[in-house]
Amino acid sequence: MKKIFFTVLIFSFIFFHIENLFSQDGKDALSVIFGRKSVRNFTGESVSKENLDVILKAGMSAPTAVNKQPWSFVVVTDRMTLDKLSDSLPSAKMLYKAGAAIIVCAIPEKAINGSAEFAVIDCSLAGENILLAIEALGLGGLWTACYPDNARMETVRSILGIPSDIIPLNVIPIGHPEGETKPKDKFKPENIHWGKW
Amino acid sequence: MKKIFFTVLIFSFIFFHIENLFSQDGKDALSVIFGRKSVRNFTGESVSKENLDVILKAGMSAPTAVNKQPWSFVVVTDRMTLDKLSDSLPSAKMLYKAGAAIIVCAIPEKAINGSAEFAVIDCSLAGENILLAIEALGLGGLWTACYPDNARMETVRSILGIPSDIIPLNVIPIGHPEGETKPKDKFKPENIHWGKW
Repeated sequence: MKKIFFTVLIFSFIFFHIENLFSQDGKDALSVIFGRKSVRNFTGESVSKENLDVILKAGMSAPTAVNKQPWSFVVVTDRMTLDKLSDSLPSAKMLYKAGAAIIVCAIPEKAINGSAEFAVIDCSLAGENILLAIEALGLGGLWTACYPDNARMETVRSILGIPSDIIPLNVIPIGHPEGETKPKDKFKPENIHWGKW
Repeated sequence: MKKIFFTVLIFSFIFFHIENLFSQDGKDALSVIFGRKSVRNFTGESVSKENLDVILKAGMSAPTAVNKQPWSFVVVTDRMTLDKLSDSLPSAKMLYKAGAAIIVCAIPEKAINGSAEFAVIDCSLAGENILLAIEALGLGGLWTACYPDNARMETVRSILGIPSDIIPLNVIPIGHPEGETKPKDKFKPENIHWGKW
């Protein structure tokens, strides 16, 4: 009987953990979408290469018009470049304590009809996937805009060597969150039109 | 002893299911991001109000520049309007078998600096959240573009009574998938620049 007891215990343990063993991450999708928030305070710790790979894969999983994938991702992890970006971008001061940054770059030439509008939209979707992957991994981050501000785009291009025909859409600081940030509840029924405007 | 056996069995059952009881949905976030695909074939079944509410809440959970939320969502579920949109939009023929459609509308006037660019980006992020929520719920959908095509925007405005200063960004058909669509693997290391461009 003792044998049965322990057999059941062991099997129920395996049964409980088997889902987690096969899933990439425990957090369910809707909770991550609803729970994502803009995290501005970081501990200063670095972000692992493994996590950055997952985040970049998430970015490249976004849909693009006619599957053109008109994007490129610059990943910054070295302290000096993060500080330099932080010095030059008033909107991205949180980079001083971030462990990494991803700059989503839109490539109009690669987009459908060579369209900058489509390149920017496609890359915006990639950017949202990146923000959600950051949340799913228990890290923090936020979208700080470059486009459509010409001065910010020029700053980022010059620090990172990005060609002039490429649009640096944003700078996404990524890090280990310090303190707690609560997600905003932005659900407003008045923003929904049922049937017609 | 039999008592202990059943007690353990019952407790392990509860223990296993307690996570699912509290989570909104079983699918983990990264699997949904990696597994999302553009679904074009639907069964014709309707989409429940509960699911549409979850999908709209996901849309409104996206970040927006300076929290302006420059968006509005038109939700179409009646057969006649879905067919009318399908008749008029060559890019959205899948609406004939879809159960619903969401049109994400960008409102430049509400965006930071009254900027159409920011309104479009903010609404693109909302659109990606909508696509991911559709995937998370086991439904299917895809982004069919209106903006930046003037003719398509005019068509959608006229059918749905959308004012001329509002940008109908897309039409997202939503339905119960027919057949299986596999996600594309778009991870390309050559699209990543480590350190610098």
